[in-house]
Amino acid sequence: MIGSDILKVDMFLNHQIDVKLLNDIGKEFRRVFSGIRPDKILTIEASGIGIACIAAQYFDNIPVVFAKKGAHRNVGSNLYYSDVFSYTKGVTCTIGVSKDYLHAGEKILIIDDFLAKGGAVLGLKDIIEQAGAQLCGVGIVIEKGFQDGGEKLRRMGINVQSLAVVQSMRDGKISFGKGSR
Amino acid sequence: MIGSDILKVDMFLNHQIDVKLLNDIGKEFRRVFSGIRPDKILTIEASGIGIACIAAQYFDNIPVVFAKKGAHRNVGSNLYYSDVFSYTKGVTCTIGVSKDYLHAGEKILIIDDFLAKGGAVLGLKDIIEQAGAQLCGVGIVIEKGFQDGGEKLRRMGINVQSLAVVQSMRDGKISFGKGSR
Repeated sequence: MIGSDILKVDMFLNHQIDVKLLNDIGKEFRRVFSGIRPDKILTIEASGIGIACIAAQYFDNIPVVFAKKGAHRNVGSNLYYSDVFSYTKGVTCTIGVSKDYLHAGEKILIIDDFLAKGGAVLGLKDIIEQAGAQLCGVGIVIEKGFQDGGEKLRRMGINVQSLAVVQSMRDGKISFGKGSR
Repeated sequence: MIGSDILKVDMFLNHQIDVKLLNDIGKEFRRVFSGIRPDKILTIEASGIGIACIAAQYFDNIPVVFAKKGAHRNVGSNLYYSDVFSYTKGVTCTIGVSKDYLHAGEKILIIDDFLAKGGAVLGLKDIIEQAGAQLCGVGIVIEKGFQDGGEKLRRMGINVQSLAVVQSMRDGKISFGKGSR
């Protein structure tokens, strides 16, 4: 934990990766999304990729597409773009997905490591809509319940499932609250 | 294929990811490295991560560590650094790995999507040596056999195993040569 709002999960999620844990996470995503049949998983580089690839194995090995960060808007390029503001880093980043890998009518499941203010999910949702595809769910490993992203997305009618919800991080202690289920 | 030396594998490897193929790749890495027992897999973001995570499942779920690109050298920081020149992009990039996740005596298997001039592998090898760990093998999905990285690394005595070796890319045709086995 760094300060009161940055949670450091380098040890198992986004620098060193605990592959066995990712398998448990993948199984749990399959369970909480048992009612949906996505065609693809969409995530965002870098730390979403491992989670999404392992999870895809529990969704009949559907393809994973990852949005690239730091994309540059080029006229005539073959990408869908969206701008995402990172509160952690204090910068806006353009993300891009090739038009070749998202198609009208496809059902897309977003998977990512963190949900805080919801910026990354809204950017991915924007790209899904540009493609004419359909967002069918958002699977998050750790939601920061004391920030408003989860509430904002659920109010929009999005099926957001977070495996862990952190309710507060104060004085070196992390409190977990109930998830969205 | 773009020009005569950039091979575009966006469709299955580094933008959209074919998870079933990654499983076949993981199994094949296990087979070609049947003689070694690595403690960890080291890769580099972003496209190495999915390959490494799926492959780790065939190596008893050992942890995956990925080097981060665009690291900034800070005095007193807790990272091992190395500089990698990308011939594809024409820029030097500093990669970093936390000192918490590589330790003296550990046996490390490097896994990456491409091998061309060998810059990324040499940067990762440098970091492994800074940690006092031991490089026990390099697993590559696609080696560009017409560039000198593979030969350079093998001459250094490194156990490099490439699942596919591209011998030439001319006039829109890709020729595969024999691998290192």
